[in-house]
Amino acid sequence: MEMPIKVIAFDADDTLWVNEPFFQEAEEKFCSLLEDFMPAHAILKELYRTEIQNLALYGYGIKGFMLSMIETAMRISDQKVPVSLVEKILSIGQEMLQKPVELLPGVEEVLTSLNGDYRMVLATKGDLVDQERKLHKSGLEKYFHHIEIMSEKRVEDFAKLIRHLDVAPEDFLMLGNSLKSDILPVLELGAYAIHIPFHVTWIHEQVDHEISHERFHTVENISLAAEVIRGI
Amino acid sequence: MEMPIKVIAFDADDTLWVNEPFFQEAEEKFCSLLEDFMPAHAILKELYRTEIQNLALYGYGIKGFMLSMIETAMRISDQKVPVSLVEKILSIGQEMLQKPVELLPGVEEVLTSLNGDYRMVLATKGDLVDQERKLHKSGLEKYFHHIEIMSEKRVEDFAKLIRHLDVAPEDFLMLGNSLKSDILPVLELGAYAIHIPFHVTWIHEQVDHEISHERFHTVENISLAAEVIRGI
Repeated sequence: MEMPIKVIAFDADDTLWVNEPFFQEAEEKFCSLLEDFMPAHAILKELYRTEIQNLALYGYGIKGFMLSMIETAMRISDQKVPVSLVEKILSIGQEMLQKPVELLPGVEEVLTSLNGDYRMVLATKGDLVDQERKLHKSGLEKYFHHIEIMSEKRVEDFAKLIRHLDVAPEDFLMLGNSLKSDILPVLELGAYAIHIPFHVTWIHEQVDHEISHERFHTVENISLAAEVIRGI
Repeated sequence: MEMPIKVIAFDADDTLWVNEPFFQEAEEKFCSLLEDFMPAHAILKELYRTEIQNLALYGYGIKGFMLSMIETAMRISDQKVPVSLVEKILSIGQEMLQKPVELLPGVEEVLTSLNGDYRMVLATKGDLVDQERKLHKSGLEKYFHHIEIMSEKRVEDFAKLIRHLDVAPEDFLMLGNSLKSDILPVLELGAYAIHIPFHVTWIHEQVDHEISHERFHTVENISLAAEVIRGI
């Protein structure tokens, strides 16, 4: 029987491997470096403001995050931070860039079980070098027919990807943890989407309304995704 | 008659538009900020050392360059730089990220003249967001069938690109200003390459030996490339 779904696209960060917790860990270190100037919650607010201001210029990823931490430290300390602190911020980021890749439970099993029956691609936002590094460390490269590292995940970006993969939207399913980036734009195109909530989500990726759609599914963890996909 | 060349891949920085001079301009500003600590030539040597050390971690592009400038300033001043200087370094980089795109002479004419007769792709190293920004500002997007932003331009990276484009190496021609990144790996694969020297080349991209190869051509400027390509 003809499979309705031909291509399955997987998000990477917090879908295949741990990401956001490393950012939160870094934010905590950043806050403790600056605790003499501001309480943590206020520092985080300032950092987020800087990140959003710089998003168009820097894009997503750790390098931009490092630059935004430095800029924020300058601003909230009114340039009174010791320069040594700037070096500590650089180390926080460089550590992030060298973290081992922690696969989420069930990921390898699901990829193995779907392998061969579907064309599987990776569709991730973020920094080119860093995402390639993580994919390589993950050992998951062999499962993916195509890797798409995207500067944004808007409707037009997915439209381009689906055209590039030479399939119809109704042959395409996206699987990810971000309702905003992985689910809504894909549904708008007429493709399928499976949401796998992750326990932490960056404020910028949060969506505050319920989603109900005939081509939308939610599963508690990736291990349950294969069955849903085969059922479509 | 059947065209031997099917796909023409263009490098972007210093092939289609100005890039390296903006880095050199930034390096000069960086040196003058630190002139109390070291003579310019020594600062540049230190900066280059930092960039190369960080290359695997940061990849190419302006954000990594900004982070390396900050790291270098810390090191050569033995952390005695005023923090205000770190802010000046951030501004140098943010200015670079907002520079208008300066097309090199003849670029638009060559793309127009080859358009339709060949599949044209863009194959550039560097930062994802920044290269997309420049391509968009350049107004050249419409000429390219595919955009490949590469973290590296080694033999295996071009092999992957050529496979992805579904052509044989002998159907593929790369055109660029860097012998190291645009020419040598492509020739090794059995594809064609045209070198268009640019008046400045980053040390890291310099090659100190002569290249002579039956599938290798050099032209003084891009306007002369179309004729060479049609002659192959």
